[in-house]
Amino acid sequence: MRALIVNCTLKPSPEPSNTEALASHVARALAERGVEVGTVRVVDLDIRPGVKTDMGDGDQWPEVHERLLAADILVVASPTWVGRPSSVAQRVLERMDAMLSETDDDGVPVAYGKVAGVVVTGNEDGAHHVISEICGGLVDIGYTIPAQAWTYWHLGPGPGPDYLDDEKGHDWAHSTGRTMAAHLHHVASALAARPWPAPAQ
Amino acid sequence: MRALIVNCTLKPSPEPSNTEALASHVARALAERGVEVGTVRVVDLDIRPGVKTDMGDGDQWPEVHERLLAADILVVASPTWVGRPSSVAQRVLERMDAMLSETDDDGVPVAYGKVAGVVVTGNEDGAHHVISEICGGLVDIGYTIPAQAWTYWHLGPGPGPDYLDDEKGHDWAHSTGRTMAAHLHHVASALAARPWPAPAQ
Amino acid sequence: MRALIVNCTLKPSPEPSNTEALASHVARALAERGVEVGTVRVVDLDIRPGVKTDMGDGDQWPEVHERLLAADILVVASPTWVGRPSSVAQRVLERMDAMLSETDDDGVPVAYGKVAGVVVTGNEDGAHHVISEICGGLVDIGYTIPAQAWTYWHLGPGPGPDYLDDEKGHDWAHSTGRTMAAHLHHVASALAARPWPAPAQ
Amino acid sequence: MRALIVNCTLKPSPEPSNTEALASHVARALAERGVEVGTVRVVDLDIRPGVKTDMGDGDQWPEVHERLLAADILVVASPTWVGRPSSVAQRVLERMDAMLSETDDDGVPVAYGKVAGVVVTGNEDGAHHVISEICGGLVDIGYTIPAQAWTYWHLGPGPGPDYLDDEKGHDWAHSTGRTMAAHLHHVASALAARPWPAPAQ
Repeated sequence: MRALIVNCTLKPSPEPSNTEALASHVARALAERGVEVGTVRVVDLDIRPGVKTDMGDGDQWPEVHERLLAADILVVASPTWVGRPSSVAQRVLERMDAMLSETDDDGVPVAYGKVAGVVVTGNEDGAHHVISEICGGLVDIGYTIPAQAWTYWHLGPGPGPDYLDDEKGHDWAHSTGRTMAAHLHHVASALAARPWPAPAQ
Repeated sequence: MRALIVNCTLKPSPEPSNTEALASHVARALAERGVEVGTVRVVDLDIRPGVKTDMGDGDQWPEVHERLLAADILVVASPTWVGRPSSVAQRVLERMDAMLSETDDDGVPVAYGKVAGVVVTGNEDGAHHVISEICGGLVDIGYTIPAQAWTYWHLGPGPGPDYLDDEKGHDWAHSTGRTMAAHLHHVASALAARPWPAPAQ
Repeated sequence: MRALIVNCTLKPSPEPSNTEALASHVARALAERGVEVGTVRVVDLDIRPGVKTDMGDGDQWPEVHERLLAADILVVASPTWVGRPSSVAQRVLERMDAMLSETDDDGVPVAYGKVAGVVVTGNEDGAHHVISEICGGLVDIGYTIPAQAWTYWHLGPGPGPDYLDDEKGHDWAHSTGRTMAAHLHHVASALAARPWPAPAQ
Repeated sequence: MRALIVNCTLKPSPEPSNTEALASHVARALAERGVEVGTVRVVDLDIRPGVKTDMGDGDQWPEVHERLLAADILVVASPTWVGRPSSVAQRVLERMDAMLSETDDDGVPVAYGKVAGVVVTGNEDGAHHVISEICGGLVDIGYTIPAQAWTYWHLGPGPGPDYLDDEKGHDWAHSTGRTMAAHLHHVASALAARPWPAPAQ
């Protein structure tokens, strides 16, 4: 079983990414279940605006797309900016939009049968909204969202420290991340055992 | 396999409910798959504000709660008002909040292993937002959301007719509803085959 | 100048309301500017489901509606439940929906020229989303939302104490509430000085 | 009085932009009121990810930032993708986040006293959500949102034509856009007449 963690931080490498740091706990918990886990830091690539799988002209989305197709489990990891998913996360959803039209010979979209979850970090507030927004998009694209397939970290109220700067709440966020990994693995295993039904006529 | 359709219209019986009318197509498609389908029209009951399973004093939520526990599949059907899920739908989510603390002997919340989807009607715009809001809440409470486990109907832009008053777009909404039923049934079947894992320590 | 604070807690009187406690700081700051401030605790009234100003049959919305019409400033104060505005807050928006069709002799809806803001409390996360949802609805209904016309309190990550149980962050929430009051008063004063233009033909 | 329309289409020039086409009706209505209207098509510029005003290294945000500072009225025009504001719109909000820390000598953030509205196009559903998301962000950054300061166009249910491909609903969208322009101009005029108060201590 394979998982792909799509890190939607705004910060290019090698800057430290709070989002990557929290997502790494989910990655570890998936690996402990025998899942092969890869990561992509989207901001390091040239991902063109658009809603097709290949926007041509140096667009590096096709390589992410290939890795999405190869993964049974997707984790979208996003910071919260202005209370919402990052522009990089929204760019990812826009590019994934084309996956709804990519089907197998029976007309089943390529994402059907795959599962997804969300990791959120931020320095103030907004995690559940970021989770709802991203999960809402992923359900449209064809992913199944297991129960409590998310974890997050931020403190409130008002602007405060980043995840990497304050240990408070880490235990809760990591334990919640381990549960998330268990849920992703469980539902992915259940779905892997039977083919997704062809669409209603 | 059992399904419960929770109709969150603002209109008490016997007024016609657009939401019920669209949801009935999903109910029929579930029944054709051998699922036993029940419906509750929440506004006809006295559902007290609060976040406990029994708010006492004539509160009729406990009977809805019993039916939720007995159902493998939940369909929340909501109209769109002021662009958002109805107050009745939000009341339902608030009352379901207590289900997170109701666990089996292994500490697994009662909703884990159940699946859910959303039906939306409206006279203007907003279905995908209503779906995201409700699915976001249900994932927190413990439901798994299958890929494209929703259907909706409205026309735009600006205020217009209701679902029962205009045939336009019905074919799309019904076909999408049949696909939704297939997805709910598929994922519910896959999850029924194996017990949900106990929470991470 | 008059303000109305609409408290959308789920808890009937005389239970302590965290939302009322935080909103009282905004009320005080408005009063210090000479604004006459009233409060209504909606859950204590019988507010019927529906989207008309008078749903008949014991419906107590008409008295709230009268107070809304008399107020230049509206503050919607809501707890966060399942990450979203309370069912009582959504019920208020639904009932206010009718105000869009209530116009003066020039066809100007009754809420035009009035300003509104939002106060949010919660025991976890979600304030900015609750603010966006409520402000989005109020803009549709006809209110003008001044810059940073909100305050909130909650701690994260994960479930935690209520506002009345933890002093942490109170200074920030109260100072932000005083700024909110200044902004509501400023924009209400600016709008009071000139009549709202009649709608485009 | 000056207005800036920030077009957040995903399509670079010279591709036709549905969003620009609808926004042009708002621009015209503003111009008829004597407002000097400029437009920026963000996707044609190199706008780096980040939350500072100048991300260095070829970043073209500073020139947009200058135009934002010079404008009394902001119109964010966004397509709906996967039910949400475009990645370009979210990028704009992220870059505007720094404006909260840019203040005059009295500590008043630079956006205070400015007004904003939203134009949305799409081929399915979601306008009110896009409006709420963008307005929520802009209120945080310091803009005042006048009553009904938006217009939109899309048809539903399910995927359909684009704004430039179908005349249905244009009258409503254009008339609503003219009202939007009147509201932006009215509130901008009211706010221009008096200085924004310095923040509470």
